[in-house]
Amino acid sequence: MKVQRVDMFVCPSATPADTSGLQSLVDAGKVTRDNLVALVGKTDGTGFHDDWGRVWADAVLREWTAKLLGVAKDEVAKHVIFVLSGGCPGVITPHIAAVTREWVEVAQAPAEKRLVVGRAGSEAIAPEEVGRMGMIRKVAAATHEAMRDAQITDPKDVHLVMVKVPGLTVSSTVDAESRGHTVVSHDLTFGPEGAGSYANDAAALGVAMALGEVPESKLSDGVVRRDWDLYSEVAMTSSGGEKRHGEVVVFGNSAASASELVIGHAVTKDFIDAQGVRDALRAAGIRFDGGLPVEKDLDRLVHVFAKSVIPGSDVVRGQHITLLDDHNAYQIGKALGGMLIASVTGRTANYVSGGERNSHQGPPGGNIVAAVVRAG
Amino acid sequence: MKVQRVDMFVCPSATPADTSGLQSLVDAGKVTRDNLVALVGKTDGTGFHDDWGRVWADAVLREWTAKLLGVAKDEVAKHVIFVLSGGCPGVITPHIAAVTREWVEVAQAPAEKRLVVGRAGSEAIAPEEVGRMGMIRKVAAATHEAMRDAQITDPKDVHLVMVKVPGLTVSSTVDAESRGHTVVSHDLTFGPEGAGSYANDAAALGVAMALGEVPESKLSDGVVRRDWDLYSEVAMTSSGGEKRHGEVVVFGNSAASASELVIGHAVTKDFIDAQGVRDALRAAGIRFDGGLPVEKDLDRLVHVFAKSVIPGSDVVRGQHITLLDDHNAYQIGKALGGMLIASVTGRTANYVSGGERNSHQGPPGGNIVAAVVRAG
Amino acid sequence: MKVQRVDMFVCPSATPADTSGLQSLVDAGKVTRDNLVALVGKTDGTGFHDDWGRVWADAVLREWTAKLLGVAKDEVAKHVIFVLSGGCPGVITPHIAAVTREWVEVAQAPAEKRLVVGRAGSEAIAPEEVGRMGMIRKVAAATHEAMRDAQITDPKDVHLVMVKVPGLTVSSTVDAESRGHTVVSHDLTFGPEGAGSYANDAAALGVAMALGEVPESKLSDGVVRRDWDLYSEVAMTSSGGEKRHGEVVVFGNSAASASELVIGHAVTKDFIDAQGVRDALRAAGIRFDGGLPVEKDLDRLVHVFAKSVIPGSDVVRGQHITLLDDHNAYQIGKALGGMLIASVTGRTANYVSGGERNSHQGPPGGNIVAAVVRAG
Amino acid sequence: MKVQRVDMFVCPSATPADTSGLQSLVDAGKVTRDNLVALVGKTDGTGFHDDWGRVWADAVLREWTAKLLGVAKDEVAKHVIFVLSGGCPGVITPHIAAVTREWVEVAQAPAEKRLVVGRAGSEAIAPEEVGRMGMIRKVAAATHEAMRDAQITDPKDVHLVMVKVPGLTVSSTVDAESRGHTVVSHDLTFGPEGAGSYANDAAALGVAMALGEVPESKLSDGVVRRDWDLYSEVAMTSSGGEKRHGEVVVFGNSAASASELVIGHAVTKDFIDAQGVRDALRAAGIRFDGGLPVEKDLDRLVHVFAKSVIPGSDVVRGQHITLLDDHNAYQIGKALGGMLIASVTGRTANYVSGGERNSHQGPPGGNIVAAVVRAG
Repeated sequence: MKVQRVDMFVCPSATPADTSGLQSLVDAGKVTRDNLVALVGKTDGTGFHDDWGRVWADAVLREWTAKLLGVAKDEVAKHVIFVLSGGCPGVITPHIAAVTREWVEVAQAPAEKRLVVGRAGSEAIAPEEVGRMGMIRKVAAATHEAMRDAQITDPKDVHLVMVKVPGLTVSSTVDAESRGHTVVSHDLTFGPEGAGSYANDAAALGVAMALGEVPESKLSDGVVRRDWDLYSEVAMTSSGGEKRHGEVVVFGNSAASASELVIGHAVTKDFIDAQGVRDALRAAGIRFDGGLPVEKDLDRLVHVFAKSVIPGSDVVRGQHITLLDDHNAYQIGKALGGMLIASVTGRTANYVSGGERNSHQGPPGGNIVAAVVRAG
Repeated sequence: MKVQRVDMFVCPSATPADTSGLQSLVDAGKVTRDNLVALVGKTDGTGFHDDWGRVWADAVLREWTAKLLGVAKDEVAKHVIFVLSGGCPGVITPHIAAVTREWVEVAQAPAEKRLVVGRAGSEAIAPEEVGRMGMIRKVAAATHEAMRDAQITDPKDVHLVMVKVPGLTVSSTVDAESRGHTVVSHDLTFGPEGAGSYANDAAALGVAMALGEVPESKLSDGVVRRDWDLYSEVAMTSSGGEKRHGEVVVFGNSAASASELVIGHAVTKDFIDAQGVRDALRAAGIRFDGGLPVEKDLDRLVHVFAKSVIPGSDVVRGQHITLLDDHNAYQIGKALGGMLIASVTGRTANYVSGGERNSHQGPPGGNIVAAVVRAG
Repeated sequence: MKVQRVDMFVCPSATPADTSGLQSLVDAGKVTRDNLVALVGKTDGTGFHDDWGRVWADAVLREWTAKLLGVAKDEVAKHVIFVLSGGCPGVITPHIAAVTREWVEVAQAPAEKRLVVGRAGSEAIAPEEVGRMGMIRKVAAATHEAMRDAQITDPKDVHLVMVKVPGLTVSSTVDAESRGHTVVSHDLTFGPEGAGSYANDAAALGVAMALGEVPESKLSDGVVRRDWDLYSEVAMTSSGGEKRHGEVVVFGNSAASASELVIGHAVTKDFIDAQGVRDALRAAGIRFDGGLPVEKDLDRLVHVFAKSVIPGSDVVRGQHITLLDDHNAYQIGKALGGMLIASVTGRTANYVSGGERNSHQGPPGGNIVAAVVRAG
Repeated sequence: MKVQRVDMFVCPSATPADTSGLQSLVDAGKVTRDNLVALVGKTDGTGFHDDWGRVWADAVLREWTAKLLGVAKDEVAKHVIFVLSGGCPGVITPHIAAVTREWVEVAQAPAEKRLVVGRAGSEAIAPEEVGRMGMIRKVAAATHEAMRDAQITDPKDVHLVMVKVPGLTVSSTVDAESRGHTVVSHDLTFGPEGAGSYANDAAALGVAMALGEVPESKLSDGVVRRDWDLYSEVAMTSSGGEKRHGEVVVFGNSAASASELVIGHAVTKDFIDAQGVRDALRAAGIRFDGGLPVEKDLDRLVHVFAKSVIPGSDVVRGQHITLLDDHNAYQIGKALGGMLIASVTGRTANYVSGGERNSHQGPPGGNIVAAVVRAG
């Protein structure tokens, strides 16, 4: 029987242009032109709009990957998905995680479900669909396709869905309006009424619809960034640039896998909920004696993916906080997510994105945490 | 037998000018003109140099206290010590803690040691002594005196020493130099070679000397902000303004106490060490089943005092972090300390000061945490 | 004949709580409980959302004014209009300008028109009217009333209209929606699609309508923050809080005035247009020999009021700028306006507000400048 | 007679990696592998410590130049001097200026002195010399050598000296101390007592010594960053990294030049002194009718180089400013310099560096401005 074998390698980056860790993996035969599926990372810098660290990293990684694959730079996206999240405030170590997938023949499936990965591109998403039902449905369809590619049939086996969708730009807005359509917002930022936030959140609802977390009947243009009770527990989404299609990567566990890795997830119930982080570790198979992960067992932890969306409310467990009033809330909010993870795992090379206010990625006030663990 | 009864009341502040919580305590007879010893708090704002939230809070609280005491505003400092730390980034709830002390006659001492508090002013500290042995010795002497005032004889019973000392100013520098002396730095900031940092750290070493944490023989002008292996585990210090004397408040446990409160402390071993926070809770008497505090028992937690000095190194547990390169490191560093505490205690109204780089307050890379708990 | 005599006194503020300059004016008999019309100023601090300098100044000034007037603090607003703009980045000196008005009997009008001031409150503005025609019309009506109070009939004699209007809040939004209405935005900020920006801009269009700068026929809900060719050259507007009415202060010149002061205004054509600043000085009567104001004549300059709205475009005179990408654009944009004024006048105690992106206050890319000058 | 012909081409940069403008100059034959002397520019980004825009630009430009020259990347520095200053806040257009020099045979010298350029490297500068007389003397010697290379003999003909010197690092500090030396500061930043500031300022005093602006007899270790009355009017200096030698580029005018360009300079008397900017334009040959440059004549303006060091005092022309208290003073200070230049020239593609507090580059409170103009 032919099954997937997925691996994940986390390389710290000394600078945004550091490809030495990836190159070592290539030199060691662990990453090849045939098995590389995705590069997912956090890049050194502020994470603000004019953070050139992320852009530089993207340029260098695309060039490196093009060389590895022997294709032109603008062909890279067809073969390898890039998810680079800018900004490593506090205790988030800049890093790139390489995800590889091979198909191997095995005599029989392993006793427990193991990590699989699947990818899909969506249909083209028009600017008038951004942040609305059009985007929700197309992301849902692509999520289904990525599940098939991952050979997952039960949505419960999906533990992380990373999505990139088109945002709005000045020119795509003009395009939509010239064709008689409206757009979801003229604010192109990731602010509370920004098109970027609407795009991210419609993508999250698309995942939720595909996985049955939210029934299609409850979805409409009007619920996006309004009805926070609708959300996905596994979607991490981003949007931007002049993209025209969505990209979806599904991570889950499957019996049809020869991977040594397992993935699990949980959500935090609020912004300071370390228990939610521990739940994610436990879900992925880390052993606990009493309340804390067994320290030695943490060596099996390969990677953590977490959102750190800041709450829409200024009250946490009944106490007033002033984060929403802070000019640097976006950066501080992300940093705090980094601390929440690191203080539980004792490791700082975690993928933590966020900083925006409110989201359909995770429950109101809470956040998504997924952990990948080497099977014990 | 006449013993102290010390109490502590934490009042959240809706704005920097909010004295409603304190006034309620007065109205309820818990805080009186005779028992108020100290107001210690965190004020809403950025914590940066031009954060007027702290200044406004100070003005309002002094006025409120003057009315309570029936004294002139500039007499307040003789009766009540103010420790206001600016900046509540992230999950630090702005608040004021009122510390009260009464002398009560008891038939016999309680079975366990309970909270006591003592205060003392130092001799005048000349500008040429700031950040040097002169300051260290005078703070050490005042710490001894405050211990006597607290009726503590064993340094092991001291769990928190809050100190305020004079910093340098343009005019005090001129004064010192006109008398033929040098000053420790012409940089008046809290930067790595700033006079403010030298003052804070000499004060911390003064406490360490008084408590025997560092033998006097190891102390000299040259070790301040150089030899990080010398430090106090209980000193939280600040400096500033045109003060001429140091002020010391000692918190500890004593058999000669009728307080319902107990204090304990611990240190974190590094910047992400949640275990250090748990150790402080345990030291103060919070019960643990397995690794985590018993949730219900946390109701007995009255207050947490913590430093969040950022490490001098860019490596945490072998992994590179970029915090030191961040323009907002001061604010983010403080915010991260707030998350470390809140994620363990589930409460956000914690006194967390810090953000500066390196200190003799706590071990290299680690920080001090003290917890006050209602006896179980 | 009974005419106005208006005066204006600019007091630098050492701190947000500094009323010493105002008190000196009272002690000298220049400001009295009967003649004080408005306090307009810039307060020390960052100008960001959590800048407590402005709030503190407001509290202290209201208390001071209440004492002067012999009224309760919450009655002050009925007698004296407060316009406090937070944030003095760069070369903007924190200050408070007191505006006084008396009615004096004169034998005959002066040869040239002189400064007059008029005030009016608008009808109550419902939350569903904020940022829309309802607000525009009510501000226009109040502007007409303030002109009457100022005894100005020709709109050309109006050189500065300061307006404060209600913004939206969480509770006023709920109120409007519970009554079946929509609101202009759920984003409560001053971002490009924020309710605060819509409120400010509707107020500006209200002034433009009143003065005939924009015909009512061109105005509709849809043009607010869309059609930038519609604007006022004299409106400086702000919004906020739980206000329910608009407040309007009109400054202009009139023959029915015994003031020693004259006001003039101009607009800058773009963000770096020092000539626009010089034009404002010239309009107010400062003498020029060649291109520059006569240095000695600048002594007659009493005050400058300027907006520093940042352009919606990233191109200035054909060259690309990156201001729009900057996390601190709001603060830097305001600072740059301060430099533009100060570099022309050689004075830093100017009222410069702004930092937001795009506005109907002034032409696209340009800004409003008004100057008050002692008649030569 | 063999003389220099120097040209300067200012290319706006769309991104830090944009070499299209330079490449166009190569394609047009204006920049060649033989004539390229220096690349001097401002890079897009915040200018703070973790601004990767500057680093990315440096990497891309070095690679581009290596290809042009046909040398290895680490050989580029031997042939072309790079001066890249990070941070384009406000109205500073990111750009790269290419400086070229050819030697041409002319029948006779032109009637007026024209632009020449000269370069030199200094002797190796040990870490214990950084910020002290050792560095001052070595930079002075290199300045003399660069003047010879430029064929300038009269210091009055020098109008701009750009210098790069080694700063201190952790490892070079250890090196110096291991050999029994002290270093100027353990603060490695550009703060008021930072080694970076000492290095920059010693370099400036080295230029001042070479040009006779400050007699050697007045110079000593103790005057650096103490005696602000000692300064150069033409030195723009920077320091950093692991450099071991200083690099000096001298710009001046000479009769032995066939350039079409002329350079002139002036200083501002304080932070808001637009007249100083106009003086620099006039010094370089821009025509003035009355107080302002003749608008049409500004077409001949090729480039402006300016410092925007923020004053050490909080008083400008007798009025209090709060810039020194601002967390973003570094960025805002630079932005304000950009506005001062742009508001005079009407052009935003100016080289404006600065933001640090106090310097021997220019008089106390004032700054250096140099202008390069096409001869009329």
